[in-house]
Amino acid sequence: MNSAAQISAPRIDGLQYANWSEKVFRQMRAGGVDAVHVTITYHETFRETVLNISRWNRYFEDFQHLIMQGRTADDIRLARETGRTAIFFGAQNPSCIEDDIGLVEVLHTLGLRFMQLTYNNQSLLAGGCYEARDTGLTRMGRAVVAEMNRVGLVIDMSHSGERSTLEAIEASSRPIAITHANPSSWHPALRNKSEAVLRALAETGGMLGLSLYPHHLARGSDCTLRDFCEMVARTAEMMGPERLAIGSDLCQDQPDSIVAWMRNGRWTKETDFGEGSADNPGFPAQPVWFRDNRDFSNIARGLAEVGMSQAEIAGILGANWLRVFAANFGPMASRQGGEGHAQSKSNATA
Amino acid sequence: MNSAAQISAPRIDGLQYANWSEKVFRQMRAGGVDAVHVTITYHETFRETVLNISRWNRYFEDFQHLIMQGRTADDIRLARETGRTAIFFGAQNPSCIEDDIGLVEVLHTLGLRFMQLTYNNQSLLAGGCYEARDTGLTRMGRAVVAEMNRVGLVIDMSHSGERSTLEAIEASSRPIAITHANPSSWHPALRNKSEAVLRALAETGGMLGLSLYPHHLARGSDCTLRDFCEMVARTAEMMGPERLAIGSDLCQDQPDSIVAWMRNGRWTKETDFGEGSADNPGFPAQPVWFRDNRDFSNIARGLAEVGMSQAEIAGILGANWLRVFAANFGPMASRQGGEGHAQSKSNATA
Repeated sequence: MNSAAQISAPRIDGLQYANWSEKVFRQMRAGGVDAVHVTITYHETFRETVLNISRWNRYFEDFQHLIMQGRTADDIRLARETGRTAIFFGAQNPSCIEDDIGLVEVLHTLGLRFMQLTYNNQSLLAGGCYEARDTGLTRMGRAVVAEMNRVGLVIDMSHSGERSTLEAIEASSRPIAITHANPSSWHPALRNKSEAVLRALAETGGMLGLSLYPHHLARGSDCTLRDFCEMVARTAEMMGPERLAIGSDLCQDQPDSIVAWMRNGRWTKETDFGEGSADNPGFPAQPVWFRDNRDFSNIARGLAEVGMSQAEIAGILGANWLRVFAANFGPMASRQGGEGHAQSKSNATA
Repeated sequence: MNSAAQISAPRIDGLQYANWSEKVFRQMRAGGVDAVHVTITYHETFRETVLNISRWNRYFEDFQHLIMQGRTADDIRLARETGRTAIFFGAQNPSCIEDDIGLVEVLHTLGLRFMQLTYNNQSLLAGGCYEARDTGLTRMGRAVVAEMNRVGLVIDMSHSGERSTLEAIEASSRPIAITHANPSSWHPALRNKSEAVLRALAETGGMLGLSLYPHHLARGSDCTLRDFCEMVARTAEMMGPERLAIGSDLCQDQPDSIVAWMRNGRWTKETDFGEGSADNPGFPAQPVWFRDNRDFSNIARGLAEVGMSQAEIAGILGANWLRVFAANFGPMASRQGGEGHAQSKSNATA
């Protein structure tokens, strides 16, 4: 690591799904964003997900001066040394593995580092946060959790039901993540998380990526920076500041047809408005203090103004994700999931 | 590299397609085989090829004390240090990329290191050795050759027509391979190669993997070790010994239904007997001096008996493949195919 990289903490965003373009990649660089977990697939099949990976391969080729694919935490060091942003792939739904557990390792080899077990609806693996009844982890869900643990694909429960989330935390031998959500005690959206979930997450070394998506914010697009940062400070008191990071859920430059795809996929002929409504069906406007990748400094400033220390802020803005990426993106040391359980969790917490 | 690895040359087979089992992997170890290029797909689609990769992932998990996946030449060093055989993936036909050039990089990421542009028949990319007319490289063929060059996926023309092979040698900015065939001057099978092809191959730093498949041998299963080794020595005089290696084409323990699949895929409702015939439709018997992976020492002995030097024999038994693997399994240094052409070839020849 060169001296420039040593003197500043990394800046990492735990979720974005922009309409990717040179403009967005340049804004990542302008904002000093060293790594981003990007969504590459929602309801797509495996083959469709591979088409999306091909599209990213072309971005990596065409914009190689701005971005590079991230596979390990060490790639973030390389990205910083070469003035680029490392892009880590994630799936918001397990449709990409279809009904085939073998696709977990295949997609990990192709760079997938996060996968949600559900996206709002019931999946083959678990219950979604919009379902009336939550199955918890299914039979295939338990098998896939073990396989994700084995290869180093982080379980993400951002869009899952409460029971499923608690069962995933319990079943997983490695820490899990909720990459983009906020506490429901602050804003009671179905997508935000209860104190019970957040405490269980923190106790097992898991991570909460704090969301800047207006539907997850108190007063939506009008949420103030101070209100957001006070929520972060309170959540840090409950979970520990080392368990928090940013997962902005930034959906920059997307047409509203994309949020319709996210919500409706191919599973209904009706229109589901998800967190929106018939009179507000599209993407909501971002708060003025977090419009795009150039605004992470506003969050750093806001967190300082509510009394958080520079070390805590550096953790939340990137160092905490870096630690979790380093511990969880590779294979487990041992194939014996049982005896590796406690050790993996304590390693990741260390 | 430990001292044991330094004192013996690597032993590498440039093509096998066995009915994979612990028995076969143990025979690789017993024969001191450090690396094998294995066929993972013939006529399969992309999705079916991924199923085959999943099966290999399970082999790597279940037999991790015997085999490991090879991605770079350096993995052969690791395999030798840990007493295992490195398995490198290859495709005998481009059906695995379907009509999508993006799948070249995707399959390379999944470990594919060789791909034939055709398997006997016309493909989207080139003409096969059994077709009446040879198109040469098609429009997509030229695009895919450039993409294979870019990512480091070696072009294999073992089952291609003569014109297509000569055009691939010319179009490719990196050396190509004929992983499993012999000179047609020794045994005039459609699958064996003319002196014109072999000279063009050698002049561009390409490689010929000498085949032990009986249909490629003079007198078939009754071919003698001495006759085979005299052919090797003559071919070395023509091409240079550094351009030769072994590509045994060993199809161990396969039922005859597999050779029917190789020959007929899903392209015909008739039965094509390929190199066989209606009264000899199955796999031919191996020569007694090369029954399986334990018999490479017979070839080393035979080559010595026809007067080849120990250095030449070490090259043919593995060191030549190692050099070619090291130069050609990674991305090209420059995206400018034109100016990289001569340099790549001379690097690989060095």
